[in-house]
Amino acid sequence: MKQSANEIIHLHHGSGGEHMTKLLNEVIIKTLHNDILDVKHDGAFLNLQGKLAFSTDSYVISPIFFKGGNIGELAVNGTVNDLSMCGAKPKYLSLSFIIEEGFSLAEFTTIVESIRKAADKAEVQIVTGDTKVVERGKGDKIYINTSGIGVVYDKAEISSLQIKPGNAVLINSAIASHGMAIMSEREGLQFESDIVSDTTNLNFTVQQLIERFGNKVHFLRDATRGGLASVLNEIATDCHLGISIFDEKINVETQVKNACELLGLDPLYVANEGAFVCIVDQSVADEALALLQTKNPLASNIGTITEEHPNKVILHSAFGGKRVVNPLIGEQLPRIC
Amino acid sequence: MKQSANEIIHLHHGSGGEHMTKLLNEVIIKTLHNDILDVKHDGAFLNLQGKLAFSTDSYVISPIFFKGGNIGELAVNGTVNDLSMCGAKPKYLSLSFIIEEGFSLAEFTTIVESIRKAADKAEVQIVTGDTKVVERGKGDKIYINTSGIGVVYDKAEISSLQIKPGNAVLINSAIASHGMAIMSEREGLQFESDIVSDTTNLNFTVQQLIERFGNKVHFLRDATRGGLASVLNEIATDCHLGISIFDEKINVETQVKNACELLGLDPLYVANEGAFVCIVDQSVADEALALLQTKNPLASNIGTITEEHPNKVILHSAFGGKRVVNPLIGEQLPRIC
Repeated sequence: MKQSANEIIHLHHGSGGEHMTKLLNEVIIKTLHNDILDVKHDGAFLNLQGKLAFSTDSYVISPIFFKGGNIGELAVNGTVNDLSMCGAKPKYLSLSFIIEEGFSLAEFTTIVESIRKAADKAEVQIVTGDTKVVERGKGDKIYINTSGIGVVYDKAEISSLQIKPGNAVLINSAIASHGMAIMSEREGLQFESDIVSDTTNLNFTVQQLIERFGNKVHFLRDATRGGLASVLNEIATDCHLGISIFDEKINVETQVKNACELLGLDPLYVANEGAFVCIVDQSVADEALALLQTKNPLASNIGTITEEHPNKVILHSAFGGKRVVNPLIGEQLPRIC
Repeated sequence: MKQSANEIIHLHHGSGGEHMTKLLNEVIIKTLHNDILDVKHDGAFLNLQGKLAFSTDSYVISPIFFKGGNIGELAVNGTVNDLSMCGAKPKYLSLSFIIEEGFSLAEFTTIVESIRKAADKAEVQIVTGDTKVVERGKGDKIYINTSGIGVVYDKAEISSLQIKPGNAVLINSAIASHGMAIMSEREGLQFESDIVSDTTNLNFTVQQLIERFGNKVHFLRDATRGGLASVLNEIATDCHLGISIFDEKINVETQVKNACELLGLDPLYVANEGAFVCIVDQSVADEALALLQTKNPLASNIGTITEEHPNKVILHSAFGGKRVVNPLIGEQLPRIC
């Protein structure tokens, strides 16, 4: 599709008629094409065997372009990561757009190109899709749903039922950078160095963890909406055990920490896109941490599972103090993902 | 969740925090619960073997409640039907909401209940989900994405490559009732009898067709957005053959026809939700039609595939005239599904 800078998406691009076919063929399928997608049926045909994982997420982030990424790669990475957290190898994604009338065709094309790049990087295929257009004022530029199918690794046994007292709680990176990148963008804040979203695909890291440590990896969860605090609280509730974490073990990059202080936000509650919690047997904690640190030096062993204070997360300070980390109440940063 | 009539959905219901957990537990999981969904992981675990079909659709219909259904059952039936059109038995759906802040909690609950009923009727399970909330004016009450996985029937060989000259073109029902039901609702039109959407699950009909006629069923496509005309044009283009259809064979219920005339709409272009095109070998055309007529007396054999006029759909009138049926250009009824 030859594009002029002023071209926009119209309602007729979602009509099921010729304009939609043109948008599909000349932007979406042209960019994303692969053997399965090219069949253009109402659905995709897949050959898969074994235990599968199936996940879905709608992405409504604002702004849609931010430092470190855009809504397109976020939509791929997010679902790739949800499947990874199930102990599965992500294989196939569906892709569904809800576009607001008037959205720039050039920006749409950029997003579709980012989707292709992110899918290639994670080695997944977009195999089926849908495009809807809503009137101005009934959306916000673009919303994207991705759903995904993965094949659970034979060795994986990821379940909150596997979590036991004494297990180590690891995290693969520093926290709070995605949320603060979005927040800085929205508020127009300038820092000495840019705060960049940590959006990335975690599937290869998870694959290595499971190949190497098998069922000694008990639980995985990415710390997205609601941040590390919310995710740890969910885990504690699900397994009816307590979690003790240590303040000085939780890494937050300096400019992220400064931005949080400036805005009065607790980094524990700020969303991440590439940070995940990994609960492992204490016997492999050091080795698993070493593996995570080969990917990111800020990976850390932040605490343990305990029979004390069931369903509660307790944060220990460097000075011996401790406090309950409550689940997020209310809304810290709407439309963060 | 005890509800008062005035309760609404707030941004914090999409935050990943306690309010979201409450909405999930007390409305969504409470209504939709099943063994797989109840695990509440980032994704669902499924055991499936063989050739699978995978499909996705986002539903943005306005109004969300209409005669014959609401957006919830539409979202289930639509994806069930897309999988059916692949010659697959629909098994599992994902469910993702994008809710506008301020949407009524009572209406949301009604929609979730309709989803449960439609899923039960079609014998599919909702196994994983997501809920996002966007600010007022950035959505329109509720948008729903469903993605689905089905198992392709061993006997099915549904593909545009299977379509051959001489094949019969069947349709399972009258056309245009969904689009005109929505249009009447929007325009506040009153007719002697109500026009009711034809939204329904087609999976059991397709199952019977394939069990009985196997690979003599060459192609299936539901005639949704863009109506029968658009779908036939897509098929003609995909198989590089022509399609001849006969005006007097295409059923339109009287009040639907009257409404189309009143509004100057051609029923061939009006969306359906329960009407599908079934292209079969001429040798089984009568039997297949008889099977479809046991479900709906308005099922009809509307024409044939031909080598003449490749890529074109020609409509023959009762009086011997004929005209090209063009693909839909522009937008007839935005947000019809």
